Amino acid sequence: RSIVTFALTILTSSQAILIVWSKRSGKYEYSVTTANFMVEALKCILSLAALARIWQIEGVTRDNRLSMAWEEVSVYPIPAALYLIKNLLQYYIFAYVDAPGYQILKNLNIISTGVLFCIVLKKKLSEIQWAAFILLCAGCTTAQLNSNSDRVLQTPVQGWLMAIIMALLSGFAGVYTEAIIKKRPSRNINVQNFWLYIFGMCFNSVAILTQDFYAVYSKGFFHGYRFITVVMICNHALSGIAVSMVMKYADNIVYSTSVAMLLTGVASVFLFGFQLSLAFFLGCSVVSVAVYLHSIGKI
Amino acid sequence: RSIVTFALTILTSSQAILIVWSKRSGKYEYSVTTANFMVEALKCILSLAALARIWQIEGVTRDNRLSMAWEEVSVYPIPAALYLIKNLLQYYIFAYVDAPGYQILKNLNIISTGVLFCIVLKKKLSEIQWAAFILLCAGCTTAQLNSNSDRVLQTPVQGWLMAIIMALLSGFAGVYTEAIIKKRPSRNINVQNFWLYIFGMCFNSVAILTQDFYAVYSKGFFHGYRFITVVMICNHALSGIAVSMVMKYADNIVYSTSVAMLLTGVASVFLFGFQLSLAFFLGCSVVSVAVYLHSIGKI
Repeated sequence: RSIVTFALTILTSSQAILIVWSKRSGKYEYSVTTANFMVEALKCILSLAALARIWQIEGVTRDNRLSMAWEEVSVYPIPAALYLIKNLLQYYIFAYVDAPGYQILKNLNIISTGVLFCIVLKKKLSEIQWAAFILLCAGCTTAQLNSNSDRVLQTPVQGWLMAIIMALLSGFAGVYTEAIIKKRPSRNINVQNFWLYIFGMCFNSVAILTQDFYAVYSKGFFHGYRFITVVMICNHALSGIAVSMVMKYADNIVYSTSVAMLLTGVASVFLFGFQLSLAFFLGCSVVSVAVYLHSIGKI
Repeated sequence: RSIVTFALTILTSSQAILIVWSKRSGKYEYSVTTANFMVEALKCILSLAALARIWQIEGVTRDNRLSMAWEEVSVYPIPAALYLIKNLLQYYIFAYVDAPGYQILKNLNIISTGVLFCIVLKKKLSEIQWAAFILLCAGCTTAQLNSNSDRVLQTPVQGWLMAIIMALLSGFAGVYTEAIIKKRPSRNINVQNFWLYIFGMCFNSVAILTQDFYAVYSKGFFHGYRFITVVMICNHALSGIAVSMVMKYADNIVYSTSVAMLLTGVASVFLFGFQLSLAFFLGCSVVSVAVYLHSIGKI
């Protein structure tokens, strides 16, 4: 279990760094849609591999077989589309936000998820969780405070807007997935993931065609891929899996989220000349406490 | 009850402002020891007045009479001395800290009180309270972040040290008083306060003699007093009383602490040319949430 937590921490910490690192002179040389397609495909394969093991042990049952009624399959396109847009936005946000800033702003999805759960699924939020939401906002802003420039915050409005949109998308997708799971609680999680990833790949193909058709057609699907691009793709696929593996142990996620913010900050000093400030450290502390409070505040 | 809360908020908000305002060109023209003596005397009179009313209603009983065994009286000098030093330090800290900064740093006594209670009286602190302590530190520091100068923080080390010493003094005094109350829980609070203030006045007299003897001897006890000095003295005496009146309603104290920080900040803009910054606002928010969490986190 502690190995999984360690792996999750490393995977989470390197996520933002790898995306920024995969750029060359500020631009992606590969098509981000193809990279994202590869991530979805990899996750699809990994969930199939997990299912294959389960079939070996338990045999194929009603709950772990891949085929399901059209009526049930038909709900998956919506969260798949939401996640896809969120994942693609991830590549563009780095035009406005640095890696440590992104790692912190990512936590805003705790708020959107909480509030949407509260509204849509009529789940009650505890006072401690509301307090955590305020702290998340304050902590995220604190970490962005600029000490030596005219701008008050390091991240421009575009960066904040994109971060908020991403948080909302992942909140909606989370609520939607939860609602699906509630309808068929016995359904194996890998089957659900499989369909989520399948639709993700379908939509992603559309994105490739509309956005990068010419580049892919003339330079090939894998044009501009470097070693770091491959590492980034593997990292993204694996961290999704790692999160779902430690989902049950909220403590571990709190721990890895907190450490990841700091690690990303420290690593960015060496890799991208990021300036570690007291404000960044204070913001990280407040966000960490908020994530912790949110997890212990569950009713 | 809401009137008391409103009064408490106004009293708390004006505390730091009145001290700074009572200065003239950065110096106190009156002897701070005499001012503090007047505060103690006023509080002593107010607790006697409260007792007189109780005597009228309940009659003089064992629990509300003023005289007590020497053995019991003999414990009061210690908290009285601690509070006295803390109260006198209050006048000198403003050489290093501005009014809004002081209003925020004051909350550090929540930490010292909590930790000392935990160590001395072996009270258990909840996880939420520990989280609140971290937030208090982070929030206090955030509010002091400097946006347009070479120094990282607005308050110099001396200011922080004095704030921490004051927090420790008030923590120790709080633990000591709690221990006294525990020994005789039926004893009326006004009797306890009376003795606390009597010893406070005694020690304060010593402070006047050692520190301001020449000034008082040559210029009189009330030299340099202005209208604002009198208002400040009344405010200090009344806020002590108001706090003990709403002690039972923790919510009210949370509310007035939070509002007082903001009000002090806003008022200082007009009175002393204080610069309201985003960092100040963020720090206030985090400290407010921390005070709230500390109050709901009581086991």
